[in-house]
Amino acid sequence: MLSDPKTDADLRHALIATAHALADAAAPVTLGGFRSAGLHTDNKLDRGFDPVTEADRAAERAMRDELARLRPDDAILGEEYGHKAGTTGLTWVLDPIDGTRGYISGTPTWGTLIAVNGTQGPIFGLIDQPYTGERFVGGFGNAQLLRDQSRIALRTKVNDALGAAILFTTFPEIGTPQDREAFTRVADSCRLVRYGMDCYAYALLAAGQIDLVIEAGLNAYDIAAPIAVIEAAGGVVTNWEGGPVHDGGRAVAAANPALHRAALDLLAAG
Amino acid sequence: MLSDPKTDADLRHALIATAHALADAAAPVTLGGFRSAGLHTDNKLDRGFDPVTEADRAAERAMRDELARLRPDDAILGEEYGHKAGTTGLTWVLDPIDGTRGYISGTPTWGTLIAVNGTQGPIFGLIDQPYTGERFVGGFGNAQLLRDQSRIALRTKVNDALGAAILFTTFPEIGTPQDREAFTRVADSCRLVRYGMDCYAYALLAAGQIDLVIEAGLNAYDIAAPIAVIEAAGGVVTNWEGGPVHDGGRAVAAANPALHRAALDLLAAG
Repeated sequence: MLSDPKTDADLRHALIATAHALADAAAPVTLGGFRSAGLHTDNKLDRGFDPVTEADRAAERAMRDELARLRPDDAILGEEYGHKAGTTGLTWVLDPIDGTRGYISGTPTWGTLIAVNGTQGPIFGLIDQPYTGERFVGGFGNAQLLRDQSRIALRTKVNDALGAAILFTTFPEIGTPQDREAFTRVADSCRLVRYGMDCYAYALLAAGQIDLVIEAGLNAYDIAAPIAVIEAAGGVVTNWEGGPVHDGGRAVAAANPALHRAALDLLAAG
Repeated sequence: MLSDPKTDADLRHALIATAHALADAAAPVTLGGFRSAGLHTDNKLDRGFDPVTEADRAAERAMRDELARLRPDDAILGEEYGHKAGTTGLTWVLDPIDGTRGYISGTPTWGTLIAVNGTQGPIFGLIDQPYTGERFVGGFGNAQLLRDQSRIALRTKVNDALGAAILFTTFPEIGTPQDREAFTRVADSCRLVRYGMDCYAYALLAAGQIDLVIEAGLNAYDIAAPIAVIEAAGGVVTNWEGGPVHDGGRAVAAANPALHRAALDLLAAG
């Protein structure tokens, strides 16, 4: 019979320690490539622009090496090296550099995303930004920002009025033209819309700085860690229909259930 | 007769030391308000959204207090408290928090902008980001990023092909519809367009991370410090017609003269 992190404190501690060990292994690799003049990028997709750096691949290898040592029987789903089967019912979901466009531009708003999923979705995750030294962690009823020697509790905003809300998304284009229309209905109701933050926007939502993040076209490894951190901080993350989004797709993250409901209603109003 | 920083080394050193003293005075004030839950914002404009925080005002007061002590005869132009006349031919141009929308959203991409202008425009300036601990300085033939105990020389990119260029602007809306059309002509020719970085984009351009920044509707205090840092790092900053932009307006900042020429041609092609 598989262990259940809900009832097994030793397992919970092992998962938390492993997540930090993975982030610690990835950080020197990602930092080593950040703002380096000779950064090698190539296009992963035939059309469009999706830079993949050597640092991206090397950071995922570093994390997989740690998992082979610490949690060899768990499954792995990583952006760069795909799926590896496991036997424990737990899956590590890894994005070594979320926000590669920001990374190659030198902005400190990319992050390393690490989550561990049970059968129902993420149960613990972290968003690590090694250049600013920020690690946003959440799960098992606890959400914190770790920086230097400080630990700050993360709690989402209580504001429930769209008209006072700050909304983030990464690209103004969003997804399909219909996706963009739906997004614009929400955006036009908000106080402020900002772009270009990648996973850092989810961290800011967990930290009570912003109210909404809406995106389309996500992969599982883009959203698993944000779900864990935001839910532990009091927020809500679903797809645009209100269902689970940890397998990817179109995500709406909200600081609280009332804002989430208001955003869903406008997304569906077309 | 007025002293000329070009020939007076003592004056140059005094101006550099003063700029750092101003940044050091502003930093604890701006950091004190950053990510504070009770941040007070109000609307400076009747329409649109232009948050002004108490931290913004208090940081400018802290800088003006330093100037009263260190350089009482220089003129001052500040975002919050306007113009103060001087007798030296030098003007300090201050924006305590450039990127207030980013500031109230918790993104570490705002900055304190400090420049000193001679009669022909900026001669020294800095972009300070106290949360990341980065200070980008430039002028008198020298451009550096200071962080912790490190000093890294700033040098703009040598890429001269628009098709390989990374372009930043703060808002997708840019300025007027005509401004937006002109911007789009350049954007469609670039490899990558990113949004939302405020003054941090100019710092990344000076640091050789990105190729172009194009914006409209700037005030003098938005652009004076970026001009000083970017020109000292090898870049070019003008208005969209190729003339001086230190008094504000529509700015194009480029990593090198060839890229600058290519961007100007497309901006004017409508």
